[in-house]
Amino acid sequence: MKKVLIANRGEIAVRIIRACKELGIQSVAVYSEADADALHVKLADEAYCIGPKLSKDSYLSFPALLSVAEKTGADGIHPGYGFVSENADFAEACENAGIKFIGPSSDSIKIMGIKDVARTTMEAAGVPLVPGTGIVPDIETGKEWAAKIGYPVIIKATAGGGGKGIRVARTEEDLVKGIEITQKEAAAAFGNPGVYLEKFIEYFRHCEIQVLADGHGNVVHLGERDCTVQRRMQKLVEEAPSPALSSERRAEMGAAAVKAAQACNYEGAGTIEFIYDYQEDKFYFMEMNTRIQVEHPVTEMISGVDLVQQQLKIASGEKLPFTQDDIKLSGWAIECRINAENAYKNFMPSAGTVDTYVTPGGYGVRIDSAVYAGYTIPPYYDSMVAKLIVHANTREEAIAKMNRALSEFEVSGPGINTTIPFHQALMNNDVFKSAQFNTKFLEENDVLGVAEKAK
Amino acid sequence: MKKVLIANRGEIAVRIIRACKELGIQSVAVYSEADADALHVKLADEAYCIGPKLSKDSYLSFPALLSVAEKTGADGIHPGYGFVSENADFAEACENAGIKFIGPSSDSIKIMGIKDVARTTMEAAGVPLVPGTGIVPDIETGKEWAAKIGYPVIIKATAGGGGKGIRVARTEEDLVKGIEITQKEAAAAFGNPGVYLEKFIEYFRHCEIQVLADGHGNVVHLGERDCTVQRRMQKLVEEAPSPALSSERRAEMGAAAVKAAQACNYEGAGTIEFIYDYQEDKFYFMEMNTRIQVEHPVTEMISGVDLVQQQLKIASGEKLPFTQDDIKLSGWAIECRINAENAYKNFMPSAGTVDTYVTPGGYGVRIDSAVYAGYTIPPYYDSMVAKLIVHANTREEAIAKMNRALSEFEVSGPGINTTIPFHQALMNNDVFKSAQFNTKFLEENDVLGVAEKAK
Repeated sequence: MKKVLIANRGEIAVRIIRACKELGIQSVAVYSEADADALHVKLADEAYCIGPKLSKDSYLSFPALLSVAEKTGADGIHPGYGFVSENADFAEACENAGIKFIGPSSDSIKIMGIKDVARTTMEAAGVPLVPGTGIVPDIETGKEWAAKIGYPVIIKATAGGGGKGIRVARTEEDLVKGIEITQKEAAAAFGNPGVYLEKFIEYFRHCEIQVLADGHGNVVHLGERDCTVQRRMQKLVEEAPSPALSSERRAEMGAAAVKAAQACNYEGAGTIEFIYDYQEDKFYFMEMNTRIQVEHPVTEMISGVDLVQQQLKIASGEKLPFTQDDIKLSGWAIECRINAENAYKNFMPSAGTVDTYVTPGGYGVRIDSAVYAGYTIPPYYDSMVAKLIVHANTREEAIAKMNRALSEFEVSGPGINTTIPFHQALMNNDVFKSAQFNTKFLEENDVLGVAEKAK
Repeated sequence: MKKVLIANRGEIAVRIIRACKELGIQSVAVYSEADADALHVKLADEAYCIGPKLSKDSYLSFPALLSVAEKTGADGIHPGYGFVSENADFAEACENAGIKFIGPSSDSIKIMGIKDVARTTMEAAGVPLVPGTGIVPDIETGKEWAAKIGYPVIIKATAGGGGKGIRVARTEEDLVKGIEITQKEAAAAFGNPGVYLEKFIEYFRHCEIQVLADGHGNVVHLGERDCTVQRRMQKLVEEAPSPALSSERRAEMGAAAVKAAQACNYEGAGTIEFIYDYQEDKFYFMEMNTRIQVEHPVTEMISGVDLVQQQLKIASGEKLPFTQDDIKLSGWAIECRINAENAYKNFMPSAGTVDTYVTPGGYGVRIDSAVYAGYTIPPYYDSMVAKLIVHANTREEAIAKMNRALSEFEVSGPGINTTIPFHQALMNNDVFKSAQFNTKFLEENDVLGVAEKAK
């Protein structure tokens, strides 16, 4: 692979350009009219405007992306995360155009993208599933199935994902309403009204396993990430390893993830997300993300493996340079997503022009960002300012380092607020420090003391 | 240790403040009138002006430093590098004031600070020495001794160091003149006219071993750093490990360094510098630096040990948390010293106000710096802008990463030049890439093509 087009923007585009440079691969950036001053445009070897600010006309436009790839002679397209990254049709369009989609085949994306197909595939592979059903054919059958699983149950759109198309039913009444609404919404949003039911595990931790699979039959996992700190199902802080898993459960989860990847004939970097029911000490397959994830750096920090470089190498046909036994995880990594949001006002987006941008440095501190002093964060895309990642020997030391790094981080400008104060409060929160929490942590704990102050 | 005064400025003061914060230690900054806007002043918990811009009236003033330490109730003083860091009298003044000097005892500093005492001590401990002599009593004896060693010989002031008070003699005529001049200069500069002779090893690599010694008799080494890329005996680029040492020689050098530290009853972090005669595959003791060094980060990157945290812990009376067997070195680290100097004009200092300061980020990149956008680099101290450190699996990958990081680094402002173009040229230089060079590398290679361009 000699030249790669990056079909993305922001920090992940910068991340991919960096990996390309380090491997001697030419990089081609694309950008919307709103992103002419973006850092990924400055850092790439070539850059082309592909359309107006709306994603559907630029970052999601197959013809725009493919024509730049063809014009520039790119051998491959790296989709990053979001946008076209899990779009099987785009992967197929690349395959048809003879351009390597840097990720799995369109078939693998399809298997994992349709939730009930994924469930069936995982079941056949022996990956633990939350007790659940197939597509609900009618309300009456739904009632019967729900009673069998036991309430509460969760209603899921088979074509949904990322927290969308999901509804909890605690009673039969809830169930009837929930199935109808979810079917309607799913038909509108995903073009597929199918829903299925699952046992609702109310208190759990979100653990996920990073896998790497080459085109030569080799699959390894790189341990887990714990993404239990979420707000409205959006991850805010991730850590590796998980403070909740025993080494036995960790090994089992890793083995299950490898089986999952093998079952869909996976190639590239992927993540298998699990529900970890810590009360029962059991884990269940949630979904597979067939792309690089926002939180991939915490795995890099503890494994020493550059995941984006590995994506590029795998796409070039290389074999994995290590076996499972070679993978040694060491220390503790934490990532805080610093967003341009006002955490005191319900995380309201709060973008604008960044006048002052002073990033922390020193030992064990990593910044992945596309922001620089003078840059205007456009309101059209996500609100990320930076990913601040630290690596230390223990969780306690990593928290101390994160606290230190956050105290040095200065982002300001007219109208700009960031989630730095939230992360500072979190790092000093006793529940967070104790590591005894579940995905409802932020719902149940007023980390910033906003309600307290309002009194 | 609850509160530490940092008797320094610039990036090393920031480095020490970071370590303090991570360990929950209060930090007290001191600053000269020229440094009121310095980053270390902003980041410390407390900060006090200790005098005018001249170092002798501020950073070197014992009464100023000690009175702030007493006033603030600091338990210890961290001297960083330079300034009072290797001043036995200052260490003694701390000892007398009941304030912990964070470093070795004044006695250890004295042994290693007086070069002929150091030589005698090392000889007794079995550390290899360059064939040499005691203090030259008179010219005639000097001639006899030089003939016995064989020309060229090197004349060294016993109280010198850091490249000062050194002269090469290739003939007897050189020797006679050299001894006289060096004695006179040494008497004036160091208050001690004593000189001694050593065999002059013209082609060598500079290798140095990092040691850590606690107050409980435990001494470990953390492998070597290779600082062969020098300009006028000033280090510009350092790497770890050395590309020139075999694992046998590395182990011997490490063992010799531990013996050296034990022989002077060392406590804290120290570095034993060696001349590595790669033609003969032999190494010789050069000197011991009884303090943290500028280039310490490359060792941290490959060992996973935070050296400044260890200094603070040792000073608090803690035992080393690891034995020699626990120390595992992994990967390759390179540090480039980015200075405010014009490499195209003989590295002329080129400081001023930094308008734009965009630092590289991402995986395996570390910045240790005290510069920020809007900061004016004062002309009174060193010209360092930042230490840019990378860590990767192999030397080749580290060079690629350094190249990538340098390409992202933007430092500009009226009158500001940096050594970034020099480092970029170096990372692409075939001799550097081959790792086949000695300390004369920059003398003999026009890395920037300055002479070529002048034609």
